[in-house]
Amino acid sequence: MKKKVVGIFDSGLGGLTVLKTLNDKLPDTDFIYIGDTARLPYGTKSRETIARYTRQAIQALLPYEPDAIVVACNTASTALLSLGSAPALISASDFQVPVINVIEPGAEYAAKTTQSKRVGVLATRTTVHSDAYRMCIQKLDPEILVYSQAAPLLVPLVEEGWEDDPITNLVVFRYLSVLLQNNIDTLVLGCTHYPALHASFARVCGQSIQRVDSGYPVAEKLSNLLGQSLNREPEQEQSSGLENIKFFATDVAMSVNTAAKRILGVSQNTPLEFTGIDL
Amino acid sequence: MKKKVVGIFDSGLGGLTVLKTLNDKLPDTDFIYIGDTARLPYGTKSRETIARYTRQAIQALLPYEPDAIVVACNTASTALLSLGSAPALISASDFQVPVINVIEPGAEYAAKTTQSKRVGVLATRTTVHSDAYRMCIQKLDPEILVYSQAAPLLVPLVEEGWEDDPITNLVVFRYLSVLLQNNIDTLVLGCTHYPALHASFARVCGQSIQRVDSGYPVAEKLSNLLGQSLNREPEQEQSSGLENIKFFATDVAMSVNTAAKRILGVSQNTPLEFTGIDL
Repeated sequence: MKKKVVGIFDSGLGGLTVLKTLNDKLPDTDFIYIGDTARLPYGTKSRETIARYTRQAIQALLPYEPDAIVVACNTASTALLSLGSAPALISASDFQVPVINVIEPGAEYAAKTTQSKRVGVLATRTTVHSDAYRMCIQKLDPEILVYSQAAPLLVPLVEEGWEDDPITNLVVFRYLSVLLQNNIDTLVLGCTHYPALHASFARVCGQSIQRVDSGYPVAEKLSNLLGQSLNREPEQEQSSGLENIKFFATDVAMSVNTAAKRILGVSQNTPLEFTGIDL
Repeated sequence: MKKKVVGIFDSGLGGLTVLKTLNDKLPDTDFIYIGDTARLPYGTKSRETIARYTRQAIQALLPYEPDAIVVACNTASTALLSLGSAPALISASDFQVPVINVIEPGAEYAAKTTQSKRVGVLATRTTVHSDAYRMCIQKLDPEILVYSQAAPLLVPLVEEGWEDDPITNLVVFRYLSVLLQNNIDTLVLGCTHYPALHASFARVCGQSIQRVDSGYPVAEKLSNLLGQSLNREPEQEQSSGLENIKFFATDVAMSVNTAAKRILGVSQNTPLEFTGIDL
């Protein structure tokens, strides 16, 4: 059987947390990753600009003949959804290949997980403002209450490398305290950078709150779509085997390869090189 | 006498702190401001990408026939300087109009100010990595010791509106502590967002350290260049009269006008509207 090919697009490097899970869960797959590092972050840009950039990235992935494309950036994913009276700015059916956003799979997983029917969502300002998680969760179960909190400092804290740090704990605590007061039992990490902060989340949330990130729900969805079996072993801390992945970025600054290896949990000696690409 | 026209370019809205000072210090001047909000921040991008974007912005200002153009972003300013063995990527003499960067005037002012000949520089990672402030200061006086510290969290803290906040104090304290241990008596705020954090800086630095931001040194330079007298009254907290300013941004997200009014210190009722522009 021919190996499947999955294209992944993110505004930068955060989407590598999704890639890491997909690479672990779907072993017989080749991946093409594009990070729009020249124009990140998307979280502060308008819906129209984000849609334009996302369309460019999808077009750039098509020549690799992918079996599916994952828009791994939550903010970019909102452009693929019709939200209330606002139609989708990008129609997934415009392309000859399935285009998957990360919001719907995460929302489905959260709706399945919550017992108390109270879900918290932590995301960038634009994702929160789009109200996408609330709409997707309540479309599945209108009784679920969804509490959202914008957390714009978390991405810079991860990029600074302060993942395990008292200042980060304070910031996480401030952002989560409103959600915790609403007795949520499920927390959606609505930005691909946030899984890097699992230690802080564990400290602030404790064991009683289930955290949902994008990786596993998207892996499940792809497994169904591509007819591939899902590796159900617990995910490795370290990505094994990156030879099946091509890495592209719109700006290959000196720090990109180093940061990517850190996010993928591989040693800095691992061969991994981003190639420049224009969108 | 015909009014002078000054074009100002910044990667986003931080350059409005420079505009505010220039508008206060050079009263008989019209200003054209362009913020590249669609592609900010520049601090994480490569020198080549930054130079390309900066050249596009200068080109976009030329049709307004400015008497001078100020590149108000520190990171973008590095593209105008020859740094050690690296030549300037943009030659200011390529244009028919003087193009001023914010680094040289700030460096001159710091060199004049320091008594102990120990200067600290706080800036984005790219500006620190460029070593531009150290080179410019030591070109004026090779005996001055320059200590630099990258502070990538400060811009997001300002954008979050946590200017006067215990978490911000902790972050400022952590970034400054290394500089303070080196007994600096002068601190260059090498990013246009940083003046918004003056309360935190005052708490952490005390009175004994002179803080130098870009606004006043650039106003002095323009005053000489354009033959205009400098208003030497203490700067007003609130910008007065914005009718002489045209505001453009590459992405006019909903929050742009609100944030601009906050930075300029004017009431939210003040008429101020950004117009979209493509670079």
